[in-house]
Amino acid sequence: MFPRGFASDNNSGVHPAILKAIEEVNNGHTIAYGDDPVTQKAIDRFKQIFGVDIEVFFVFIGSAANVLGLKALTQPHNAIICAETAHINVDECGAPERFTGCKLLSIATTNGKLTVNGIKKHMHGFGFQHHSQPKVISISQVSELGTVYSVDEIRTLADYAHAHGMYLHMDGARLANAAVSLGIGFRAFTRDAGVDVLSFGGTKNGMMYGEAIVFFNQQLAHDFMYTRKQGLQLASKMRYISAQFLAYLQDGQWDSTAKHANTMAQLLAKKVSVIQGVTITQPVQANAVFAIIPREIIPKLQEMYFFYVWDEDRSEVRWMTSWDTSTDDIEKFFALLSELMAGR
Amino acid sequence: MFPRGFASDNNSGVHPAILKAIEEVNNGHTIAYGDDPVTQKAIDRFKQIFGVDIEVFFVFIGSAANVLGLKALTQPHNAIICAETAHINVDECGAPERFTGCKLLSIATTNGKLTVNGIKKHMHGFGFQHHSQPKVISISQVSELGTVYSVDEIRTLADYAHAHGMYLHMDGARLANAAVSLGIGFRAFTRDAGVDVLSFGGTKNGMMYGEAIVFFNQQLAHDFMYTRKQGLQLASKMRYISAQFLAYLQDGQWDSTAKHANTMAQLLAKKVSVIQGVTITQPVQANAVFAIIPREIIPKLQEMYFFYVWDEDRSEVRWMTSWDTSTDDIEKFFALLSELMAGR
Amino acid sequence: MFPRGFASDNNSGVHPAILKAIEEVNNGHTIAYGDDPVTQKAIDRFKQIFGVDIEVFFVFIGSAANVLGLKALTQPHNAIICAETAHINVDECGAPERFTGCKLLSIATTNGKLTVNGIKKHMHGFGFQHHSQPKVISISQVSELGTVYSVDEIRTLADYAHAHGMYLHMDGARLANAAVSLGIGFRAFTRDAGVDVLSFGGTKNGMMYGEAIVFFNQQLAHDFMYTRKQGLQLASKMRYISAQFLAYLQDGQWDSTAKHANTMAQLLAKKVSVIQGVTITQPVQANAVFAIIPREIIPKLQEMYFFYVWDEDRSEVRWMTSWDTSTDDIEKFFALLSELMAGR
Amino acid sequence: MFPRGFASDNNSGVHPAILKAIEEVNNGHTIAYGDDPVTQKAIDRFKQIFGVDIEVFFVFIGSAANVLGLKALTQPHNAIICAETAHINVDECGAPERFTGCKLLSIATTNGKLTVNGIKKHMHGFGFQHHSQPKVISISQVSELGTVYSVDEIRTLADYAHAHGMYLHMDGARLANAAVSLGIGFRAFTRDAGVDVLSFGGTKNGMMYGEAIVFFNQQLAHDFMYTRKQGLQLASKMRYISAQFLAYLQDGQWDSTAKHANTMAQLLAKKVSVIQGVTITQPVQANAVFAIIPREIIPKLQEMYFFYVWDEDRSEVRWMTSWDTSTDDIEKFFALLSELMAGR
Repeated sequence: MFPRGFASDNNSGVHPAILKAIEEVNNGHTIAYGDDPVTQKAIDRFKQIFGVDIEVFFVFIGSAANVLGLKALTQPHNAIICAETAHINVDECGAPERFTGCKLLSIATTNGKLTVNGIKKHMHGFGFQHHSQPKVISISQVSELGTVYSVDEIRTLADYAHAHGMYLHMDGARLANAAVSLGIGFRAFTRDAGVDVLSFGGTKNGMMYGEAIVFFNQQLAHDFMYTRKQGLQLASKMRYISAQFLAYLQDGQWDSTAKHANTMAQLLAKKVSVIQGVTITQPVQANAVFAIIPREIIPKLQEMYFFYVWDEDRSEVRWMTSWDTSTDDIEKFFALLSELMAGR
Repeated sequence: MFPRGFASDNNSGVHPAILKAIEEVNNGHTIAYGDDPVTQKAIDRFKQIFGVDIEVFFVFIGSAANVLGLKALTQPHNAIICAETAHINVDECGAPERFTGCKLLSIATTNGKLTVNGIKKHMHGFGFQHHSQPKVISISQVSELGTVYSVDEIRTLADYAHAHGMYLHMDGARLANAAVSLGIGFRAFTRDAGVDVLSFGGTKNGMMYGEAIVFFNQQLAHDFMYTRKQGLQLASKMRYISAQFLAYLQDGQWDSTAKHANTMAQLLAKKVSVIQGVTITQPVQANAVFAIIPREIIPKLQEMYFFYVWDEDRSEVRWMTSWDTSTDDIEKFFALLSELMAGR
Repeated sequence: MFPRGFASDNNSGVHPAILKAIEEVNNGHTIAYGDDPVTQKAIDRFKQIFGVDIEVFFVFIGSAANVLGLKALTQPHNAIICAETAHINVDECGAPERFTGCKLLSIATTNGKLTVNGIKKHMHGFGFQHHSQPKVISISQVSELGTVYSVDEIRTLADYAHAHGMYLHMDGARLANAAVSLGIGFRAFTRDAGVDVLSFGGTKNGMMYGEAIVFFNQQLAHDFMYTRKQGLQLASKMRYISAQFLAYLQDGQWDSTAKHANTMAQLLAKKVSVIQGVTITQPVQANAVFAIIPREIIPKLQEMYFFYVWDEDRSEVRWMTSWDTSTDDIEKFFALLSELMAGR
Repeated sequence: MFPRGFASDNNSGVHPAILKAIEEVNNGHTIAYGDDPVTQKAIDRFKQIFGVDIEVFFVFIGSAANVLGLKALTQPHNAIICAETAHINVDECGAPERFTGCKLLSIATTNGKLTVNGIKKHMHGFGFQHHSQPKVISISQVSELGTVYSVDEIRTLADYAHAHGMYLHMDGARLANAAVSLGIGFRAFTRDAGVDVLSFGGTKNGMMYGEAIVFFNQQLAHDFMYTRKQGLQLASKMRYISAQFLAYLQDGQWDSTAKHANTMAQLLAKKVSVIQGVTITQPVQANAVFAIIPREIIPKLQEMYFFYVWDEDRSEVRWMTSWDTSTDDIEKFFALLSELMAGR
C-alpha cells in the first residue's frame, strides 16, 4: 500500500469505476485501432457533450494531446504563444518544437493566465518572411498555477485570436477541475467560448491513461488520423481507453472526483493559511495550493510527503490534491506542517 | 461479449493475470513518470532475463518502441535497412522517417526475413556525402510473414552489421511467439545473438498496452530518457505498465500464452491445409497462417470473421491466432471455410 | 587553367554572358532578400514564359528546389513516388525525408522514367491510417539516365496523378537540355502537360548558382516564402541570382548552351559506339552518355578524365557533356579510349 | 545604378576584388562539391588563421551557418540559450527549432549581449527528463545591436558554458567588423577565447554569397559533411564560394572594408548626435547606429533612404553602414535629417 501525498494528481491511482469499466470490456475480440463499438460509443458521448459536428481522437497522454493538436493548427513556420509556465513550454522536453517545427513564444504572467495585453508583445512581424508567424494562442485550463480562466477571459482571447487569423488552443489536462470551479459544463467554457482545439484530460482525475483531442472545427481534423498514427499515439487495443472515457463521462463521475479534489484544496489552503509563516501565493481555484514556506521546513516536510518546490528563490512550493485525497490526509499533513513550523 | 476471430492478435483482450496485476498496484499514491518501486521491480526483472548491464525503457506501443529505438541508433543522415514487409516500412505511416530523419531502404524478401545477400544491394555509398549512410539493419522477430529467424541467422546479420559499423535492431512485437517457436529463452536469440536494441512487445500476447525498449549497449541509451519524453512516450502513471510487465514476465505467463497461440496456428494450418483449394504460403512458425484461398470465398468468410487480405493479386489472406484462441474457434472456422469451399 | 572532362555538367564553369550579367548589377545598394527590381524583372521573365498566374521562388541549389517544392505539396504523413534512380532518392542524403517528413516510394525502371504501370505497385493503402498516403509523383526531366519524357508521357502521368488526388512534381535540373531535345518550349512539357510544381535548373547549364521553384498552381505557393526562409534558402543579395536568370532566359542563351551540350553528347556517343567493346546502354536524348566498357579500362581512363562509374557490377559508366565541351575534347577522349581499348 | 542607403550591409554590392577572384577561377572544369583545389586553398587559409586542427565547411548563407552549426552541437532534446534579439531567435523564421528540434531560450538584454548573470535564469532542470536540456550558449559578435563583446566577456561565457558541459557558439555574420573594433585578429576572440563553433560571415562585408562554419573542436564536425548535404547547403560549383573567401581573407581585404564600414558608422553617429532630438541608444562599436528620432520624421526620411524601424514604441531606428558607404553619403543623409528635424 502506497501512502497518499500532495505531489501531483497523477501520483494518485485509478478510480474503481474506471477500473471496473476496463474489466467489463475485457472479453473476446474486437477490431483494433479504434474501429470498435466501445470507441464509437465513447466518441458519441463526447458529441453529446460538445455537439455532433466535432471530431474526437484518443491518445495516450496529455503532452501528446497538446503536441498533436498544435500540429493540426500550424505549419512549421508558425509560432505558438503561451504562458512562460505553460506545460507545453516547460514540461514537454521540446516536443512541441520538434513535432510541429514551430517556435514557442512565451509570456511572463503573475498567475499563469494569458491576457490580450500580455500577448501583444509577440503580435508583430505578420507577413515578414524572416519571422515565425504567430498562429496559435495556447492556454491551460486549469492553469499550471492552479488558477481558472473565466468564460469571459477565454472568449476575449478567442476573439482576439480569431480577429488575427489565429486559433485558440486549450490544454485541458485538468478540465474537470475547471468545470467544477466555474460551476458550468465543459462546452460553455470551451467550444462556446471560442476554443478551436481542446486537449481533454482524464488521467489526472482518476483515469489510468488516455486523453482526447477535441476539434470544434472539423476542417482542422482533416487527415488527423494520419497525424495521430505518425505521432505514435494510435492505440491498438483502443477499447481500453474508450471504456475509461465512457465511465469517466458518466453523470456523477468526473464531476464528483474533480469536485472532491477542489474541495480538498480549499480545505488544505484554509488550514495552512492560518499557520504563521505560511503564505498562499495564488488564488486556490482548482486543486492546487501554492505557498511560500520557510526554506528549512521543506526538506523535513518532504521526508514524509513528496511534493515539488515550485520556485527555489522564493521558497515557494506546490501542493496538489487529488480525487482520492482524504480529509484525514489533510489533517495529518497540517499537523506535521504546524509542528515543524512551531519547532523552528 | 465480442466474438473471437483471426484478424490479429491485438484484437484479443487482456489476460486475467495481467488485469489482476493492474488491480493489485491500484492503491494509494506513487511517484509518477517511472520513479516508483513497481517500475523498478519490472526493470529488475528485465535485467534478470537479459543481464544487469542493460537499459530498459517502457513506452506505450510497438511503433514507438521501434521508432524511438531506431532514433537512438541513428543520426538524420543515416539509412535503415529493412524488409519490404517490415512494420516500420509499411505500417507506421512514415513515423520512422519523420522522427529519425533517416531514409528507409527496403528489401524484397520471399519470407519476410532479411539475409546478408539481400542486404548487399543497399550496402554502398559509404563515405559519399550525397548518400544516406546505412547505419542500422532492422529485423522483425517474428517476421511480418509469421516466420522466425534462427539464432544463426540473427548472428550472421549481427556480425555483418557490426563488421560494417552498423547496428542490428529487432522489432520484437511477437518476441514471445518467437521464443516459444525456437524453444529457447529471450536472451539467446537477442542479446547473445548480437542484437543491439530490442523492441520487446507485450500487447499482442495478452497485455493491455506497454512495450519495452531494451538497450544491450548502455552507451546507446545515453540521454534516451529525454528522447522518450520528447517522443511523447513517457507515461505518468507508469506503475500500470510496469505491473503488467511484472506479471507478463513471471514464469509460466508469457510462454504459456505464446505457446498456446503458436499451437493454435499449427492446428489451424493443419486443418485448413487439407481443404482442396487452400494453399498455405508461408511456414507456420509462430501464430500466423498465410494462405491463398479462392477470391470469391473471402467476402463470405469475412461476413463471419474479420481478417486481412494480405495480397489482393494473389488472393492471399492472413489469419492470426491469439492467446485466447480456442480449439472450438478453429473447429468452427474450419467448418465454415470447408462449407464455403464445398459450396463453390 | 582547369582541364575539361566528362564527369558532370556541374564541373563546368560559368558562361561569360552570365558572369557579365552579374557584373552589371554590381553597383550601389538594393534592398535585400528579393524585393529588388532585378528580381522583379527575373520573375516577370518567368511569367512571360509560363503565364502570369504562377509563383516563382529562387533558391540556391537543385536539391533545395526539389525538397522545398515537395514540402509545399505534402504533409508529413504523405508518400512521394519516384524512380529508384531519382536524384531525390539517391543523391540528396535523405533531405526529402527529413524536411518533408514523408516516405519516398521508389520504383525500379530500365531507363530512369516512371510509367503509370510501374507506379501502380505503390498505389494502395489510401485512407488506411497506418499507411503513408501517396500524394506526389516526382519525375526528373531529363532523367538521371539521360532520357527525356515526351509530352504525352508527362501528360499521362499528370492525368493519373490528378485522377488520384495527387500532384506531379518535376525535377528540372536539366530542363533546358530536355527542351532542346524535345524541340519545344519550356511551357509545353511542364505546365501545359500537367506539371504542378517545377524545379527549374540553371547551374548545370552555365549559371554559377541559383535554381527556381515554379508553382503552376498558385494556391500551393501560399506561405511558401516562409518555407523558403525556414528552409535556409533565402538569399540576402538576391539580385545576383536574379541577374543570372535574366541573362539565362534571354533568347539564344539557355537554348544555345543546352543545344551545344546535347550535340556534343550525340557526337561522343556516335564516336565511342563504333569502338569494339563499348556498348551504349541508354538512348542519348540529352547530354549524358551511358556505356558499358571493360572493367580494366576504367581506372586508366580516369587517370586523365574524372567521371563516375554508374554501376560497378555491369561496369557501366556515365559521361556528361557540358555547355563548354568542345569537339576537340571529344576527339581527344575518343582517341584515348580507342588507344586503351586497342591496347587490351 | 542603385543609390546607397543605410538599411543593411547586405544591401550593398560585391567588392571588386571579390568579383575579380570569381572571374579568375572561371575557366575549365573542376570537380564539384568541394573537392577542387580552390576550395582546398581556401580551407588552408582558414587553417592559417585559426590553426590546423580545425574543420571548415562552406555554406550559402549566415542562417544556414548558424542552424547547421547548432545542429552539430545538439540533440533534439537540448535547449539553446541566446539573446532575445539574436538573429537565430527573431530572423530565421524558426529554422533553428525546425532543423535542430531544440528549444530556444531567450534572454532580454539591454545591449544585445549575454552575460552569465542573465543566462542563469535558464540554467536549471539539468537531468530532469521533462526539461529541454541546455547545451549551447549562442552569442552574436557583432551583436544585433551593434555592440561588440570583449575577449574577456567571451571567455567568461565560454568558461561558464564549458563548466556546465555546454558549448559556446558564435554567430559571426559581422565578424570582421568585430575584429576591427577590437583591434585584434579573428583567432584571439574566437578560438582562443573559448568559442567551440563559429559562423564566419562574408556576405555583409563585400562577398556575393558564402559563409563558413568553423569547428574548433574537430570531434564536433564528425559526420558534418552529411549534415551540410542534408541541410541543403552543399554547393555544386563550390569553387566560386572558395575563390571569394580566398580573396576576402587576403591581407588588407576584409579588414580594410570592415574598418571603412566601422569608421563610417562612427562618422554618422558623431554627426547625427549633435542634432537636437536625435538620441543615440547604443554604443557605436561596429557598423550600426541605433537612434531614437521623432516619430513623424521617419516616413519622410524613408522616402529617400530605406532603413528599418527597430522599435516602434520607442521610435528607435537602425542605420547600418557598409564597405561602400562614402562620406558623401553620410553628409547628404545628415543634411536631409537636419533639414527634416529643423522643419518640424
